[in-house]
Amino acid sequence: MSRVTVRTPIRRFQNGTFTSRPDTVAGEEPLEIRIGGVPISTTMRTPGHDIELIHGLLHAEGIITGPQDVIAARYCAGVDSAGQNTYNVLDVSLRDPSSAAELVRPRAFVTSSACGVCGTSSIEALQRVTRYKLPNEPLFDPTMISTMPDELRTQQQAFKTTGGLHAAGLFTPAGRIERVREDVGRHNAVDKVIGAALLADELPISGRALITSSRASFELVQKAVMAGMGMLVAVSAPSSLAVQLAVETGLTLVGFTSARGFNIYAGGHRILHSGM
Amino acid sequence: MSRVTVRTPIRRFQNGTFTSRPDTVAGEEPLEIRIGGVPISTTMRTPGHDIELIHGLLHAEGIITGPQDVIAARYCAGVDSAGQNTYNVLDVSLRDPSSAAELVRPRAFVTSSACGVCGTSSIEALQRVTRYKLPNEPLFDPTMISTMPDELRTQQQAFKTTGGLHAAGLFTPAGRIERVREDVGRHNAVDKVIGAALLADELPISGRALITSSRASFELVQKAVMAGMGMLVAVSAPSSLAVQLAVETGLTLVGFTSARGFNIYAGGHRILHSGM
Repeated sequence: MSRVTVRTPIRRFQNGTFTSRPDTVAGEEPLEIRIGGVPISTTMRTPGHDIELIHGLLHAEGIITGPQDVIAARYCAGVDSAGQNTYNVLDVSLRDPSSAAELVRPRAFVTSSACGVCGTSSIEALQRVTRYKLPNEPLFDPTMISTMPDELRTQQQAFKTTGGLHAAGLFTPAGRIERVREDVGRHNAVDKVIGAALLADELPISGRALITSSRASFELVQKAVMAGMGMLVAVSAPSSLAVQLAVETGLTLVGFTSARGFNIYAGGHRILHSGM
Repeated sequence: MSRVTVRTPIRRFQNGTFTSRPDTVAGEEPLEIRIGGVPISTTMRTPGHDIELIHGLLHAEGIITGPQDVIAARYCAGVDSAGQNTYNVLDVSLRDPSSAAELVRPRAFVTSSACGVCGTSSIEALQRVTRYKLPNEPLFDPTMISTMPDELRTQQQAFKTTGGLHAAGLFTPAGRIERVREDVGRHNAVDKVIGAALLADELPISGRALITSSRASFELVQKAVMAGMGMLVAVSAPSSLAVQLAVETGLTLVGFTSARGFNIYAGGHRILHSGM
């Protein structure tokens, strides 16, 4: 049974009338992450692509840089009241366990993206851990960028039935979409995409744009920069710190993207015909 | 200068043409939270209502139950490169410092909402810490519920200029809206609303519905239940675990709410005329 979507009975109010009907909602379950058997963190996520998720998450945290850094990642015991494995506990064995020492201290996952007292110190901290120099060539045609959200939407199987899942994916300059992943959490969707690329040993992800169905926060820009990507396309609004980080790292940041157009918040000279 | 919104120059692509114009984005800055001088966590948030945010957050974590549990909450030193206070470091003195012992261990903020290997154990853990019995009377007229999102939107000052902020607020059965708060993070917006009520010593929040401009995740249902609320209205979709938690705790959960209607996912007998 898939746990990506879950059926549930609902009562609908429409045109002044109540009716009963079945509905489908996005699956959300906790995933406990262990490193060498030690519980490190629990994240709420949509089940599926968990191995990619954990690789993407560890990469965004600066713990791993490639597939060779993970010796094994496997579901371990964790049974529900019926004695079934829940597949909600993942244990990771690292080649260099000391690389995760940060994580077993307080303030671990929560704070790495914002370790200081102002946005500037957060950005400086990130710049220290970024391994890749972002590409600097013009990459994408503006008309093609406008098609990305609709193209992403056509690939979102679970969104169609639930309306409740974020998605992320990679776009080629020719407009082909790759590695679409869905999750109740927008960060998780991006971690799954980048984790999938990392498992295929394709980091840095060059010549691709990362698209997210959501807004662009500081953390999403951070994940794109950490993966060496040159461009992030958000369907919705960016935040101030997302814009600032994109400007300072050289990421091309596009927001409010739809068939009608989009806004360029940083790196406009790298979009074809933009006149910048 | 307000930091809720930030002006930034953009390049817009529309109807096949690029133009330059100023734009406004939602403010996002890190807030470092300290308890008794010890850094506990850093959260990305929209500056403003920080004292409410920290009270709401500590309440959702089960650390405090009322305003009397906090002796003082004040911005402490944290200067930017120009030597100005960033107002991004908040230090909280608790009446009972031992109540926060959990937070200085690994897995603190991240995991309290999902401490087990399956959704069921997460829900059981929450049920142990919930202090309030949720009300059981019919409360809201369905036609009024349909008006909530538009009513909330009219109160969202910063959303109007940025399109990038979530909001939360409290509705009375008469359709009056109270304590609207905005934030780049939907959890933060809810923490600010509940923190404001807690500071006014109004917990449990009875006879009110909590409305969120976002989807309803497990964590948002958890925060509503922790505050003793009877009803959560989400503008967008709920997740499977949000529905499950609402059913098990007796919270009335409404989703996909708009002027056209809404879906009831749990507790339908407590909405007037629902025929349940």
